Amino acid sequence: MRAAAYVGHGTIVVGDVQPVPPGPGDVQIAVAYNGICGTDLHILHGAMDARVTLPAVLGHEMSGRIVAIGSDVGSWSIGDAVTVMPLVWCGTCPACLAGNSHICHTLNFVGIDSPGALQRLWTVPASVLVGLPPELPLQHAALVEPTAVAVHDVRRGQVRAGEQTVVVGGGPVGLLIASVARSVGADVVVLEVDPFRRSIIEHVGLVAIDPTTADVPAVIDAWTGGAGAAVSFEVSGSQPGIDTALDVLGVRGRLVVVGIHPQPRPVNLQRVFWRELTLIGARVYQRADFERAVELVAAGEVPVDALISRIEPLNRTAEAFAALESGGNVMKVLIDCQAE
Amino acid sequence: MRAAAYVGHGTIVVGDVQPVPPGPGDVQIAVAYNGICGTDLHILHGAMDARVTLPAVLGHEMSGRIVAIGSDVGSWSIGDAVTVMPLVWCGTCPACLAGNSHICHTLNFVGIDSPGALQRLWTVPASVLVGLPPELPLQHAALVEPTAVAVHDVRRGQVRAGEQTVVVGGGPVGLLIASVARSVGADVVVLEVDPFRRSIIEHVGLVAIDPTTADVPAVIDAWTGGAGAAVSFEVSGSQPGIDTALDVLGVRGRLVVVGIHPQPRPVNLQRVFWRELTLIGARVYQRADFERAVELVAAGEVPVDALISRIEPLNRTAEAFAALESGGNVMKVLIDCQAE
Repeated sequence: MRAAAYVGHGTIVVGDVQPVPPGPGDVQIAVAYNGICGTDLHILHGAMDARVTLPAVLGHEMSGRIVAIGSDVGSWSIGDAVTVMPLVWCGTCPACLAGNSHICHTLNFVGIDSPGALQRLWTVPASVLVGLPPELPLQHAALVEPTAVAVHDVRRGQVRAGEQTVVVGGGPVGLLIASVARSVGADVVVLEVDPFRRSIIEHVGLVAIDPTTADVPAVIDAWTGGAGAAVSFEVSGSQPGIDTALDVLGVRGRLVVVGIHPQPRPVNLQRVFWRELTLIGARVYQRADFERAVELVAAGEVPVDALISRIEPLNRTAEAFAALESGGNVMKVLIDCQAE
Repeated sequence: MRAAAYVGHGTIVVGDVQPVPPGPGDVQIAVAYNGICGTDLHILHGAMDARVTLPAVLGHEMSGRIVAIGSDVGSWSIGDAVTVMPLVWCGTCPACLAGNSHICHTLNFVGIDSPGALQRLWTVPASVLVGLPPELPLQHAALVEPTAVAVHDVRRGQVRAGEQTVVVGGGPVGLLIASVARSVGADVVVLEVDPFRRSIIEHVGLVAIDPTTADVPAVIDAWTGGAGAAVSFEVSGSQPGIDTALDVLGVRGRLVVVGIHPQPRPVNLQRVFWRELTLIGARVYQRADFERAVELVAAGEVPVDALISRIEPLNRTAEAFAALESGGNVMKVLIDCQAE
């Protein structure tokens, strides 16, 4: 059976592995599609070598159908279309006991801390399954996981209808956040430096601004009548991104920290104080976010077709990573895990 | 009439000035006591020279009695004991219209942007008056304004009964925050480097820890059973303070930014993301905070006697500032504005 694995040193290898038979609480899924995520690129760069076990089969944005069921698993059937909420928690740490199991102190993120979906057959605990409507195309369903990230981020930001919202960074997660914010009635502007990404954002009816050429403070000032934005999302992971996400906010504005900032970032705490701003960390998702993401994708509320730049067969996983690395004219790349 | 004014170059001068007769919407107050605030020290250091008009009569933590009333002022009487919520807002900017008039875009902070209470007779708009219970000693009432800061900070942090709360910095504001948090049922630890301040904190029945000698992470870990604190208040204005206030928090913890950080501070946004922390700016107070502060001071819920290190006559205002500058064995110094 074919599987794509990170083997260290910036290298993805596709080879043959033995499928894992489902244990008593497991199911085995024939993976249909798997999207490549920014976190997968971080892993490829070696940034998470201390965390992954080599060879590491990556992949956690997926769709597929159940092909085998363990002995203790009820309520699922062979052939069910599913995606996976790739979190396995302990249930006993302080975070789990407080109802925040998505931030479990010993969280197993499936696809990072344990094998992922970039293989033809994937065995996972039944607890991570999320059912899909039968009519939802499986290509689209592979976007449920990043959509759940966006749903969680928008929920953490408590975005309400009519609120002026700025998304800093218009890659796949930024575009999904903008789409989910629009679905709750927010008035959204996306700041994005890449012209291809701006063209996609505009194609789906959102406003995209190039922060390297626009006078962002003047644009925000005119747009908000001098009030400043109600909410911003920092999705770029960059210092200019965090500066901008803070600067655009009006009094009592909320900044949701979505992007990864490996190093401490200088933050203008004087402005946080002066305008009574709130900075809100948002990590992964909870079950309700996943269920809402399935609804949004199925209802066409998020632009999944516009997000899927190309679909590659499993054998070309390394080339797909390389295309994302180059950054040119690409949003989301899916791997067809049944095609070779 | 005597008044104490900042005249620039780190200098306070006490001299004679003409009292200002109350205009139609004003009252004139015989100031009883005025506390010196950290902001007043910033002004003395020249840090706010661009904002103040010299000579600047400082002072905004005060108590007194009304001695004259303007023609258009109802509902106040000669002899009423009052303090002042020293904010005058425009009522028409986006912040005011959104109900956040304490963050008015053109806020007049009385005692900074206009003359303050360090004088025998002080004329202010009647809109800033806050009534005091007749039985409340006027020395104690001079602590209402910093108590209102603490009430606002605790409210912004949404501190609830039973929550483990860390206050980083145990000067007057830190001690008041700790006291107000205790009044809502929180379990409070104060981190403070100065031994005199720790002795005062312990004297009023709170836990004080020296972060320069204690293993703070181990202490917090043991205290919270590995969960981390629910809330922290950064009151020190220092880089180690912001680092510590972030590090002590458990999953979904809230950090209230109270201290002044003139320069951007490196902030561990990875931790904000990873633990879904929230950073909350808190500035001054709203009317409800002031009214609650009067109740807390009158009920003895905040340790005003322990906070008042000494009372100096108006003529010795410069010496009082110098004592605060030296930092030795002093919490709050009041000026008796009727004594010379």
